[in-house]
Amino acid sequence: MKNLFEAAKRGAAQVALIPDAERAAALEAVADAILAHSAELLSANAEDLARMDPQNPLYDRLKLSPERLEGIASDMRHVAALPSPLGRTLEDRTLPNGLRLRKVSVPFGVIGVIYEARPNVTFDVFSLCFKSGNASVLKGGSDADASNRAAVALIRRVLAERGLPEAAVTLLPPTHEAVGELLGAVGYVDLVIPRGGRRLIDYVRDNAKVPCIETGAGVVNTYFDAAGDLEIGRRIVLNAKTRRVSVCNALDCLIVHRDRLADLPALVAPLAEKDVRIYADEAAFAALSGRYPLLESATPESFGTEYMDYKMAVRTVDSLDGALAHIARYGSGHSESIITADAAAAARFQAEVDAACVYVNAPTAFTDGAQFGLGAEIGISTQKLGARGPMGLCEITTYKWLIDGNGQVRP
Amino acid sequence: MKNLFEAAKRGAAQVALIPDAERAAALEAVADAILAHSAELLSANAEDLARMDPQNPLYDRLKLSPERLEGIASDMRHVAALPSPLGRTLEDRTLPNGLRLRKVSVPFGVIGVIYEARPNVTFDVFSLCFKSGNASVLKGGSDADASNRAAVALIRRVLAERGLPEAAVTLLPPTHEAVGELLGAVGYVDLVIPRGGRRLIDYVRDNAKVPCIETGAGVVNTYFDAAGDLEIGRRIVLNAKTRRVSVCNALDCLIVHRDRLADLPALVAPLAEKDVRIYADEAAFAALSGRYPLLESATPESFGTEYMDYKMAVRTVDSLDGALAHIARYGSGHSESIITADAAAAARFQAEVDAACVYVNAPTAFTDGAQFGLGAEIGISTQKLGARGPMGLCEITTYKWLIDGNGQVRP
Repeated sequence: MKNLFEAAKRGAAQVALIPDAERAAALEAVADAILAHSAELLSANAEDLARMDPQNPLYDRLKLSPERLEGIASDMRHVAALPSPLGRTLEDRTLPNGLRLRKVSVPFGVIGVIYEARPNVTFDVFSLCFKSGNASVLKGGSDADASNRAAVALIRRVLAERGLPEAAVTLLPPTHEAVGELLGAVGYVDLVIPRGGRRLIDYVRDNAKVPCIETGAGVVNTYFDAAGDLEIGRRIVLNAKTRRVSVCNALDCLIVHRDRLADLPALVAPLAEKDVRIYADEAAFAALSGRYPLLESATPESFGTEYMDYKMAVRTVDSLDGALAHIARYGSGHSESIITADAAAAARFQAEVDAACVYVNAPTAFTDGAQFGLGAEIGISTQKLGARGPMGLCEITTYKWLIDGNGQVRP
Repeated sequence: MKNLFEAAKRGAAQVALIPDAERAAALEAVADAILAHSAELLSANAEDLARMDPQNPLYDRLKLSPERLEGIASDMRHVAALPSPLGRTLEDRTLPNGLRLRKVSVPFGVIGVIYEARPNVTFDVFSLCFKSGNASVLKGGSDADASNRAAVALIRRVLAERGLPEAAVTLLPPTHEAVGELLGAVGYVDLVIPRGGRRLIDYVRDNAKVPCIETGAGVVNTYFDAAGDLEIGRRIVLNAKTRRVSVCNALDCLIVHRDRLADLPALVAPLAEKDVRIYADEAAFAALSGRYPLLESATPESFGTEYMDYKMAVRTVDSLDGALAHIARYGSGHSESIITADAAAAARFQAEVDAACVYVNAPTAFTDGAQFGLGAEIGISTQKLGARGPMGLCEITTYKWLIDGNGQVRP
């Protein structure tokens, strides 16, 4: 496997130097090829599907179709057209001795991505890494291996036809051993991003020797303050919980100020139409009892759980301090929101909550690269080193200092 | 030890909210206390010194003196007076739906630093972390433990007198077990920075579960191009190699274009006065033989070595490509320089060398936080995730997104 990493490193050095227009044209060509060779991709995907029980909830994520391939090609053209994240001058100054210092954005080099049985991610990660001048090393799920092999073969064919380095994208075998090699590839791999569930993320964080970014896991809270507007609250809670339950920015726990328990039934009423099950603490249970259909008592596990489902916990607090303490204990540093008309409470909430995205009177559903204007998204970082929150093209670049002199020396 | 980490995390939440003026005043008060209680610090230091052989090269680094304490206090006042790195608005935009997004700099939280027997680092790291709103957890060398305990006790006393959280700084026991706990303190420690030799850095990188930044190790090359100016080259090579040999930006290998071998004796002549020993490859050896006093033949280990001494390798290449290949193979991504009058060669060098700092016609001696105008320096990062190159106060902050709405929902 070391040969693959060495080739990826050499490929990365070449990819970094491709002019942006050529990069964009190559992505357009790959998009064309996806449509022109869709039969090939669908037939490989059929092999994978044949090995999976159609009742498996992953089946739908694994499945490609002509429409999905059109979507993938269209996403790739969108990435191709984004402004280049490279060569941005982040600082430029000249020292008194005449030395000029410029801090300029450059690619990371080789980015490893570990993900599950979603063949669209293969195209997605390739396009984002390639557009940002990085080579990608992909470790997909074994369930999608035939699809991934077909996808990467197609991409490499298009690159080779254009005289571009095939090592811009490398598919590793879908084995546990490959994960270990990738996480230990110090000197070859500059960044690893796990895309998947909590277990995968924890495993990568605990075992990576190369730098990694934790993404995605979101235990998301929304606090309805003593001064919360009920109408705004109803809209936000409904949107944050039910817009898409399977995404990491979805609401997991509604925190409610004790003084507003009388409004709690109205606050959560819209959720009943979506069959959201509520796990309420004692005070909230009493307030909702007989007034909300799908009600259960919360257990200690109800808080700190990422539901990914039509389920939500409700926690009662006596004050903003109580809400802040709950979030500090149970939140995952992803997205947190306060609903309040009290500017001082909003300011304290934003100052004191330690999370990537801290909202006032808006649903956490907005935590998303496209919504944030990043153009595209490779993941949502929940750590503080490197990018935090939604990661687009700029967030998978680093920088270097370019220093120009004419013989100055340091005293 | 978990209690210490929990306290540090609570302390960090408080430190983040201290207004900058109060933070600066506290650092001034610590500086005053260092001078007022220097006897206490020197007596603790004497305990440490008594346990070390004065012939040990670490003895001088371990030793405190009234003058050194004055220097430490003065450095602390300097940090106190720097602009706050917190609350900088890095982006501010309003989406078409009226949502306002601000990306604002905030502290990391808890920063762990692992270092060796240099008690000045204790004050240094505390002041940089405190000024940037972070709590620090320090793991110093066992040789300096009495000095470190006295230093941290003094700092905590001053903080407590001012009603500030003592947990702003925590000293761990100087044990290997403490290192393990620190590296595994997921959820409590937001960043670990090793300050020390290659072995420590590798150990931290390989074992940390918390995010870490590799710092310091520098295998530094300078390439004298076919179009290099000899006078500029002489100045740069002398400065880069001999200004201070024990620092990470010091020159380790001079790469010379074959067409300039005739100039090599003149290029390195100034080094002879400083008794620099040269390990030359075959072609360079032939060029220098009889013309440079301290000459030896290079072995394969001569390249890729960080000398930290009056020693330097010389490597001959046939082209800029050869120099780039040498640097890609042996450099550590710290600082690299080209001496050339050829603008195209300079541009290629800066585009293709993958290092934190890439110089043209200037010595790598400038890779330093103060020189770069960062005000102070906690280390020099040789990795790409997070800060790269010299790290000042801004480089030990992260950011969060603050999103303000009035009930917008996502379609």
